[in-house]
Amino acid sequence: MHEKTIGSKTVFEGRIMRVEVLDVELPSGKTSTREIIRHGPAVAVIARRRDGRFVFIYQFRKAMERICFEVMAGNCDPGEESEISAIRELKEETGYTPDSIRFLSSIYPSMGYCDERIDVFYADVGEPGETNFDHDEEIKTILLTEEEMDKKIRTGNVQDAKTLAAWALYKNFLSEG
Amino acid sequence: MHEKTIGSKTVFEGRIMRVEVLDVELPSGKTSTREIIRHGPAVAVIARRRDGRFVFIYQFRKAMERICFEVMAGNCDPGEESEISAIRELKEETGYTPDSIRFLSSIYPSMGYCDERIDVFYADVGEPGETNFDHDEEIKTILLTEEEMDKKIRTGNVQDAKTLAAWALYKNFLSEG
Repeated sequence: MHEKTIGSKTVFEGRIMRVEVLDVELPSGKTSTREIIRHGPAVAVIARRRDGRFVFIYQFRKAMERICFEVMAGNCDPGEESEISAIRELKEETGYTPDSIRFLSSIYPSMGYCDERIDVFYADVGEPGETNFDHDEEIKTILLTEEEMDKKIRTGNVQDAKTLAAWALYKNFLSEG
Repeated sequence: MHEKTIGSKTVFEGRIMRVEVLDVELPSGKTSTREIIRHGPAVAVIARRRDGRFVFIYQFRKAMERICFEVMAGNCDPGEESEISAIRELKEETGYTPDSIRFLSSIYPSMGYCDERIDVFYADVGEPGETNFDHDEEIKTILLTEEEMDKKIRTGNVQDAKTLAAWALYKNFLSEG
């Protein structure tokens, strides 16, 4: 099970992604093409307050043309270690600073055609301070208990795969519920 | 919270995706650009055998340059209803035919820059028949109990976001464990 690259070209070079078309040779000897998005690493943070509630966000997503419910997340700056990115994004998007932070696992949103890696962290957080959005972000925070989040999932109201994935990691790594 | 499209161009039109760059006007009145992948709908299937074990797959993913552990998934054919796609992909990739199938929820792997929707299904399956791979697919099946899957997640060995997301949906919708 391996596909040898026999040709490649970059067909789009953007601000957050590069698109490549690869010619590959399959194990059978046949050839095919693969369209692949190259995307820098990112982070996602499950943050839990001292009162036991978890911090999630609502933000408008142009690809979806609607406001979406998500875990806090963002791209790493070039060369930035992912734990530093996680602390930075948490502070920028919600104003929270972690009392402690722990790496859970790396996940990949679209293994079939995108190489983006998202490092998922769990953070215990204190009181929120000031936020510091990117100039083109607008974010609202929502607080949910573990039971409220489980119910939100059960009723089909969590549709972001990385948020569901991060929650599954939290549940398996840390939850006693 | 809305971003008005004030310009758009298609920068790549491929076999499985189209890439657009949109100029947007933010609520603040400032402008920005959004790089967006247009991708057809897809399906993922959590399949459970009569012996209680779940069917997952290993397949080589060029974007990752390695063999990946995933739930069964695939793209809908043009105009194909997603439940039909789910039954077809299940049969093609693993040889299983569902005794019954149930829609759980729609998920979105990369809300920030991609409009792909994945409809997640749960299927009870009987004995496997013959598989029928696409000419450029090579897939191996693995069977896991619910406890084995939970352990695989807990040890960081499930890295595909849609697989973790589908499992979180299954756990919240159907599991009694």
